[in-house]
Amino acid sequence: MDGVIHSGRLCGMTTTSPSSRPLTRKGQETRQRIVDAAAELIFRQGVAQTTIEDVRAAADVSSSQLYHYFEDKTALVWAVVDHQAETMVGGQEMFDFSTLEGLRAWRNFVIAGQREHHCSGGCPIGSLGGQLAETDPDARAHVDEGFKRWEATIQSGLREMHTRGELTPDSDPDTLALALLAALQGGLLLTQIKRDTKPLEAALDAMIELVARLSGSSS
Amino acid sequence: MDGVIHSGRLCGMTTTSPSSRPLTRKGQETRQRIVDAAAELIFRQGVAQTTIEDVRAAADVSSSQLYHYFEDKTALVWAVVDHQAETMVGGQEMFDFSTLEGLRAWRNFVIAGQREHHCSGGCPIGSLGGQLAETDPDARAHVDEGFKRWEATIQSGLREMHTRGELTPDSDPDTLALALLAALQGGLLLTQIKRDTKPLEAALDAMIELVARLSGSSS
Repeated sequence: MDGVIHSGRLCGMTTTSPSSRPLTRKGQETRQRIVDAAAELIFRQGVAQTTIEDVRAAADVSSSQLYHYFEDKTALVWAVVDHQAETMVGGQEMFDFSTLEGLRAWRNFVIAGQREHHCSGGCPIGSLGGQLAETDPDARAHVDEGFKRWEATIQSGLREMHTRGELTPDSDPDTLALALLAALQGGLLLTQIKRDTKPLEAALDAMIELVARLSGSSS
Repeated sequence: MDGVIHSGRLCGMTTTSPSSRPLTRKGQETRQRIVDAAAELIFRQGVAQTTIEDVRAAADVSSSQLYHYFEDKTALVWAVVDHQAETMVGGQEMFDFSTLEGLRAWRNFVIAGQREHHCSGGCPIGSLGGQLAETDPDARAHVDEGFKRWEATIQSGLREMHTRGELTPDSDPDTLALALLAALQGGLLLTQIKRDTKPLEAALDAMIELVARLSGSSS
């Protein structure tokens, strides 16, 4: 079972109750209010410290309402992972990863986001991965799905650069995309620990510098 | 108080009991057995899932023995952070970060370590950082201390390269060291999530490629 996402769970969770009946519009709104509250609490204090009771109070719903949408805390946490992936990755798909200017605009956006949060919380998906990877294989698979989508966005841009002949022919845009995602994640983690955006700036600048050098233009 | 390490705590914890009396050799051994057991449990299952009772049983000590060395779980967790920093950073100080060959040997060592652990657990310090940063400011400061020592090791090597004129004069070895540490951390996190060393390889190779290009030798 390790790492397998059971059919329908990843996406199905967003529109059905545990009984798999489709939700009404009002039901979807209530469900989303619960996920939003849980995501906010977990971002601030971590998975282990967040109880179902905290979420119930923050979302202003009854226990029976909460359990109508989520079988247990585990199911709620998976929904939070999917929600954070949707928010994070969705918010970055507007950037153009196929040009150096686009990469630099994205870099500035990510760093500004960290400043806005006073460098706390880290990456909403990455930090969930670190908390859940060893104890909940299904949650790890949900986090992995989120990262795959993120990676694909960066990949697609760098592949375009490569196809246009703007990266040296022997460079591998897919490996480069994975390296960029790793640099981002490590930069976010160190930024969270140090409460300073310097590590994130250093990591992203180094990767963009490498892309610039592979494209023949030293930045 | 946020982020401040109280005088003596970071180092003092390794040789004294909560009453600050120096430990006998036998006392130091018992204390170390407790820290080792806690580190192993926390590495496998996380901070939140590890109870004082788990540690007591794994280290085969009585409650009163355990509380003789550690005031509470928080103090034990700090000792685990320091211990992991000592083990991780200490184990990497033998590498020569001042040559491309040394950097590549280190890269191979880190990746082999992940394979040995079947890509589970992530970075023993980084994962503690992610779990504790928002809930325990003192633990975050301990993690930060560990990272600073790690960064200094890499820095010292890259500064040497720079001084020898083997990095372009306008490159900044300190920023590069921070970027390399971030790439390592992000690579380890993604490796943990994906259960595959590819992200770690991609991240470290990209950074070493950049260092190679800044030293004028394209790898």
